[in-house]
Amino acid sequence: MIKVDLNCDMGESFGMYKLGNDEEMMQYITSANIACGFHAGDPHVMRRTTELAKRYGVGIGAHPAFPDVIGFGRRYMKCTPGEIKDYVTYQTGALREFAAANGLRIQHCKPHGALYMMAMDDEQLARAILEAIADMDSQTVVFALNNSAVAEIGKQMGIPVALEAYSDREHTATGSIVLTRTGPSIQDYRDMAERVVRMVKEGRVVTHTGEDASIIAQTVCIHGDTPGATELAKAIVEALKQNEIKIAPIREVLGVGC
Amino acid sequence: MIKVDLNCDMGESFGMYKLGNDEEMMQYITSANIACGFHAGDPHVMRRTTELAKRYGVGIGAHPAFPDVIGFGRRYMKCTPGEIKDYVTYQTGALREFAAANGLRIQHCKPHGALYMMAMDDEQLARAILEAIADMDSQTVVFALNNSAVAEIGKQMGIPVALEAYSDREHTATGSIVLTRTGPSIQDYRDMAERVVRMVKEGRVVTHTGEDASIIAQTVCIHGDTPGATELAKAIVEALKQNEIKIAPIREVLGVGC
Amino acid sequence: MIKVDLNCDMGESFGMYKLGNDEEMMQYITSANIACGFHAGDPHVMRRTTELAKRYGVGIGAHPAFPDVIGFGRRYMKCTPGEIKDYVTYQTGALREFAAANGLRIQHCKPHGALYMMAMDDEQLARAILEAIADMDSQTVVFALNNSAVAEIGKQMGIPVALEAYSDREHTATGSIVLTRTGPSIQDYRDMAERVVRMVKEGRVVTHTGEDASIIAQTVCIHGDTPGATELAKAIVEALKQNEIKIAPIREVLGVGC
Amino acid sequence: MIKVDLNCDMGESFGMYKLGNDEEMMQYITSANIACGFHAGDPHVMRRTTELAKRYGVGIGAHPAFPDVIGFGRRYMKCTPGEIKDYVTYQTGALREFAAANGLRIQHCKPHGALYMMAMDDEQLARAILEAIADMDSQTVVFALNNSAVAEIGKQMGIPVALEAYSDREHTATGSIVLTRTGPSIQDYRDMAERVVRMVKEGRVVTHTGEDASIIAQTVCIHGDTPGATELAKAIVEALKQNEIKIAPIREVLGVGC
Repeated sequence: MIKVDLNCDMGESFGMYKLGNDEEMMQYITSANIACGFHAGDPHVMRRTTELAKRYGVGIGAHPAFPDVIGFGRRYMKCTPGEIKDYVTYQTGALREFAAANGLRIQHCKPHGALYMMAMDDEQLARAILEAIADMDSQTVVFALNNSAVAEIGKQMGIPVALEAYSDREHTATGSIVLTRTGPSIQDYRDMAERVVRMVKEGRVVTHTGEDASIIAQTVCIHGDTPGATELAKAIVEALKQNEIKIAPIREVLGVGC
Repeated sequence: MIKVDLNCDMGESFGMYKLGNDEEMMQYITSANIACGFHAGDPHVMRRTTELAKRYGVGIGAHPAFPDVIGFGRRYMKCTPGEIKDYVTYQTGALREFAAANGLRIQHCKPHGALYMMAMDDEQLARAILEAIADMDSQTVVFALNNSAVAEIGKQMGIPVALEAYSDREHTATGSIVLTRTGPSIQDYRDMAERVVRMVKEGRVVTHTGEDASIIAQTVCIHGDTPGATELAKAIVEALKQNEIKIAPIREVLGVGC
Repeated sequence: MIKVDLNCDMGESFGMYKLGNDEEMMQYITSANIACGFHAGDPHVMRRTTELAKRYGVGIGAHPAFPDVIGFGRRYMKCTPGEIKDYVTYQTGALREFAAANGLRIQHCKPHGALYMMAMDDEQLARAILEAIADMDSQTVVFALNNSAVAEIGKQMGIPVALEAYSDREHTATGSIVLTRTGPSIQDYRDMAERVVRMVKEGRVVTHTGEDASIIAQTVCIHGDTPGATELAKAIVEALKQNEIKIAPIREVLGVGC
Repeated sequence: MIKVDLNCDMGESFGMYKLGNDEEMMQYITSANIACGFHAGDPHVMRRTTELAKRYGVGIGAHPAFPDVIGFGRRYMKCTPGEIKDYVTYQTGALREFAAANGLRIQHCKPHGALYMMAMDDEQLARAILEAIADMDSQTVVFALNNSAVAEIGKQMGIPVALEAYSDREHTATGSIVLTRTGPSIQDYRDMAERVVRMVKEGRVVTHTGEDASIIAQTVCIHGDTPGATELAKAIVEALKQNEIKIAPIREVLGVGC
């Protein structure tokens, strides 16, 4: 039976500011990428989000970012590899403490926004993030785009890599995506859900330039910061079920133990 | 043989800004209170300070604070107990990750500045901090003033408490200190060193109003943010040795295991 | 004819985070208290809010706060008067530049949240804020509670003072209000609108303890951070019109020139 | 008589953290680039620095930067032109208020660090900064590298441009400099002072690759964040005097009125 993990950015509220519909999204996903205070989230939000993930049995992942709340971590910053390694360590540690207080482990790590995009292309940044992960817990699954520096170097380093595709972003022929700062523009949930099914089942996707490209989708991201996100998630879950694809924790998808 | 722990705030540099003479101070102390990024310190400074503590065999402690870099954590803020608990968890977790990457444990927790002073008097804040510690690792030693809410409630909760005195601050008759925002005004190192010896050996101190009061000094703080701090530390170490007082890790002073 | 100014906190969005329904509220009010980046708002939000106020002919006011985005400026902080003076100068200057770029002047200054509440009771803080205003432009109207330190000292210093009442907060017998961190709990718009009319017309209000107290309401605040705020604003505007009370710019209400 | 302006970054202390030797540097320079809180400086530091510039008769300039205190504004950030325009407006306005409180005008604007370097090469960023300046006060002098986008577009827009050279950085053949994140590495003050004299007098400089290139130096920057900076400044002032070059305010150098 084909299996896939569904992930979503979570805990992106901040102080008085609310963002996303975390509780409803938790019902549909298997991996929560929890903001760690650098681009979004604050200690109180992190605690609540961790508790929420526990209640719904969703795997907890660190979602480290550049230190840029105003830019929501979506602005490229030229940090040194050493800075990046330390930012990932700091943020993951902060989240791990809330996880541990709930008797949970960190399942995965997915860098956020501009850090994610930069690391996919830049070997030095990729290595910095992966070294932080290896120093902390080399069993942590790292989420990475197909053919990315993070995926390649992660495998070399023996860190479990989950290849990721997006439900609500356009893909390129090489497995990358087109980053926008304005968030997803959801048009038709069923079309997007069908695209997800095809990526998982057939390993194919039509790119933003109209090509038909190959892609491996072990985890699929749904962005939670649009009102329609829960509808999209629901449509994806239904389409996957109709196609007899099992939505499963990423370790089960990858066939690695805990 | 009488024993005492010496502690110092460490890792209070920030980005381009340097503060304190951490490496020299490490030679004299047994406990480093490491800033966790909320009042001072940044991820890079935290890594370097943790490595420095390891090299000198100094115990690592979290030094959580209010989120106030501009005010250096010395300004009273009216946060809720829930906020405080989450701030302590976040900051300690971030530090623990750097400690773990170096194969080290968090030995102790000492709140910083205004958070320290407020918690000593306020049962709700004291409990919030202690609950954060209990949720994380109830063997963590908490540093607290004599007769303080933190000391009383910590003992009730079964958390090891180290009673603290100050080498460079004035004490009150009830075991508290006088907080200043401008840092210590060191006058004569030998006088201060003698005062430390008397607190440790006789359990007595002359207060800021001239009274002779009783005090228990299981750990003595030396502030590192003045040029003369290393001279003071040196003078204290010499005076303690001359009086055959052993400078020891706080767990050994308290007689609790690791 | 009786006149009153209506004011509302504006521009409290921040980066990706949206708060309030500024454009709709602008239709009902005469004074916009624009966040200046310390508790909410960012430079981009400040520009848009200033332009919005211009389009609707609403007076622009600085809404300076403690530096505390996570706490939304609602947490008491013990800053020195010198720090407060400089914070007010900095924030007002930043806003003035956006106003000037639109050919507008700063009409008024209303401190935000905890800074507002503290300054009303604390003569030193009140003086610090008023000295900042006097140094910048002594014709700036300052908004202050009845019988407050800001009102008293402002008058002594020759700064125009607008006495303020609240549509959606409880009043005390001495003219103060009850600060909450959770925002207004609007129950019945017409009741609140009638209370506003009575404050403006009769100078009376029933306090949170049930007393009937005297109050002067030259400007009335409507908080914009609840979904029902525009309904409340609409109800207030209608009730004022039915009672032949003119909603006017604060300078006209006070009878001071530009 | 040949004239030149000397400028220095000022007010880069932050909270408890001290940086630079502003008071001594003020004795040697004619233009102070004052940090505005985004990369360094805080409202209190801005007030003191403005007062210091007034006392020494030094022209006040805004020194706006990316919002990045930890990186000291030296990390490239990919912001939109609209964000940059608003950041420059915000920071300049904040400084203008402290200047106005001292009866002073903003003389010039010099972007800081990575923002400076990016704007010199990027027409969109250059235009964003210059539009902010034009909206505020089109008589503000902008400091720019030879042959830079800021210099070209500034001239087209009718904003006075001061061409800038560096006493303590290496130049390229096209008039640019080599940015370092670690600050200047001063070797020999007299050599550097002689290089300044040659740039001002002969319009020539030996580049980092050993070429002899032409350069126009209407203002010369001395970085203040190294202990030797005051020695370098002193050596430059003496060398200029020996060569009968007048150190003058930038408006006098450019021949534009106030």
